[in-house]
Amino acid sequence: MSLPLNQTAVVGIGQTEFSKHSGRSPLQLAAEASRAAMLDAGLSPSDIDGMVTFQRDENDELELARSLGIPLLRFTGRAPFGGAGSCATIQIAAAAVASGAARAVLIYRAFNERSGHRFGQPGSYPAPGQLDIHGSFGLDTPAKIYALWYQRYMHKYGVTNEDLGRYVVLARKHAATNPAAWYYRKPITLADHQASRWIVEPILRLLDCCQESDGGVALVVTSAERAGDLRQPGVRIVATSQAHSIGGDIMFDYYRPELEDFEEARVCTEELWRQSGLGPRDIDVALIYENFSPIVFLALEAHGFCGPGEARHFIADGHGELTGSLPLNTNGGLLGEGYIHGVNNLLEGVRQIRGTAANQVVDAEHVLVSASRSNVIFGKL
Amino acid sequence: MSLPLNQTAVVGIGQTEFSKHSGRSPLQLAAEASRAAMLDAGLSPSDIDGMVTFQRDENDELELARSLGIPLLRFTGRAPFGGAGSCATIQIAAAAVASGAARAVLIYRAFNERSGHRFGQPGSYPAPGQLDIHGSFGLDTPAKIYALWYQRYMHKYGVTNEDLGRYVVLARKHAATNPAAWYYRKPITLADHQASRWIVEPILRLLDCCQESDGGVALVVTSAERAGDLRQPGVRIVATSQAHSIGGDIMFDYYRPELEDFEEARVCTEELWRQSGLGPRDIDVALIYENFSPIVFLALEAHGFCGPGEARHFIADGHGELTGSLPLNTNGGLLGEGYIHGVNNLLEGVRQIRGTAANQVVDAEHVLVSASRSNVIFGKL
Repeated sequence: MSLPLNQTAVVGIGQTEFSKHSGRSPLQLAAEASRAAMLDAGLSPSDIDGMVTFQRDENDELELARSLGIPLLRFTGRAPFGGAGSCATIQIAAAAVASGAARAVLIYRAFNERSGHRFGQPGSYPAPGQLDIHGSFGLDTPAKIYALWYQRYMHKYGVTNEDLGRYVVLARKHAATNPAAWYYRKPITLADHQASRWIVEPILRLLDCCQESDGGVALVVTSAERAGDLRQPGVRIVATSQAHSIGGDIMFDYYRPELEDFEEARVCTEELWRQSGLGPRDIDVALIYENFSPIVFLALEAHGFCGPGEARHFIADGHGELTGSLPLNTNGGLLGEGYIHGVNNLLEGVRQIRGTAANQVVDAEHVLVSASRSNVIFGKL
Repeated sequence: MSLPLNQTAVVGIGQTEFSKHSGRSPLQLAAEASRAAMLDAGLSPSDIDGMVTFQRDENDELELARSLGIPLLRFTGRAPFGGAGSCATIQIAAAAVASGAARAVLIYRAFNERSGHRFGQPGSYPAPGQLDIHGSFGLDTPAKIYALWYQRYMHKYGVTNEDLGRYVVLARKHAATNPAAWYYRKPITLADHQASRWIVEPILRLLDCCQESDGGVALVVTSAERAGDLRQPGVRIVATSQAHSIGGDIMFDYYRPELEDFEEARVCTEELWRQSGLGPRDIDVALIYENFSPIVFLALEAHGFCGPGEARHFIADGHGELTGSLPLNTNGGLLGEGYIHGVNNLLEGVRQIRGTAANQVVDAEHVLVSASRSNVIFGKL
């Protein structure tokens, strides 16, 4: 059996609560989310024969398979690049199913990223053994590392922290009506945002930063044909790709001719448009990975939803609202719902196509889930 | 485009020297091997749009792409499980090509596993953060960890260290005529083997252990159709799978009902026979991953080349010789050529099908490369 990638589908999703202190092991979180995803699909452990997670996920496939009762795995693979690879989990799983290497692949990501090892603290970068050529310039946290990159964009187009705040208010508005979100029932005003303390002045305030979270999420991918027999309406993987270009860097992305052009994000969606025949106007919901708020602005432009420098107007004019032209991060995003390394956005994409999201967009036909350097378009079967 | 997995092919291979002290970085080794593989295929860096390596390979895809001049990657993936996943690199790359996620995938593995971090020393296991439930029993090196598993097999079938020695003599005989092997021109006798010091008495002597090595290896995978236009004869990926079963463990594999039945190795080749319509008698050369010599005996039986407990006779009777019924580890294996985490066996498999191996088996049509829990059959296009 072999299929085109777009003859694959997500048939199950599952998650734990998103918290600041789960009180249990990452393996437990992975198992809970995975079991929920299998139950959601109406599949039993013996139906699963593949697993995909992040390169750096600390949950061993065999331990998880044993915990779940999965008898045999015929395919395993891991997506590099942390959150930037969150949508690559879908691509790898879809490739396994499309090529016939596996029949049903469980994707999982689980960690205690708040109560355990926090990515956002000094000393997390570079990885042990890697040469630290940036630390002596004070770049010792993701906030500082990324702010240096965002700063050029903001300078060129006159984007202020208040502009960023308008996106954060939107994300928190969506989180406020999503019971699964950390910031459920906690909307903010622009004044609240502007009153939050500087993390990296004049770029990022506290409320521009994603929610370091404990939690687990999981999805099941199988063929579109098989999806028709399962419990939930299958969600088609319409198009998916990664894009990693020669001048880029996942963290220290300072060495391009034009820093304000997010090349990978642009090239990645160009590939999705090529695969699907769709374009930015066909996307009904966009779920964009945000470690920090400015990346949403860069990605909106790179993906072609607005022109260079126009994202601040796009946000200010309400295009990202649930009733706007491009409802944005309807789950509250990683700033509002939780930071499960971006994979929680994949679950929200599935819910939007199913029609079961807390903040459901009416008649959502195509959802873009963007981790900038890896992307997927979900659609109806 | 989508293809069956067996419509993919290896079109290029490359390697550095295998040494005990490379004198250069793992990235340099990865780049040298990868460049050689691209040149071998007659492909330029811009033809490569995918990369696959080990989960634990420390060479970042972006750094390697930059070193090689690869402009854009549309697919990346990593194989879990260390050496047990060495053939999974082929499966993941083939799935990427077969599904259309990538056109040409570079597989690489490079490290200084002798002059840098040695896997074989105490303290390498378990990984940081993992619970150590075996260390208090003295299981602090792979030799000790694996010997406990091998011991049951040897006890049940009356296999002695001298029986193991007959395999080691064979592997060193093949290494002795392979100029790329660490033990080139250094054959041994059974007496030499028996005179080597005990590492884990009464199971493993020094010469039963693989050669911790510095080095880099690389392969290029693309579609069988495209292979026809390239510099070298393409080598078909006839069948490939992984097998990880619920009772298993990569290192501490002590908890099955019958330890002497290597279930994953058995199940994995059963899948290859199913995919290909071939059987053990159709295999002309077998390249079997050996961290230590006993695993060859377990794998020969699990793969169906001989019955339970018969491997010692199979070896003693000369079946593994170049002129035998199943020429075995014709490069000298990981004991004789070098330990590049098993991926060097994949290169030998390609050479045997091309007809360019140092110890070429006449008319080799089908080669099994076995890492026990991941396997591939190579054949002619």
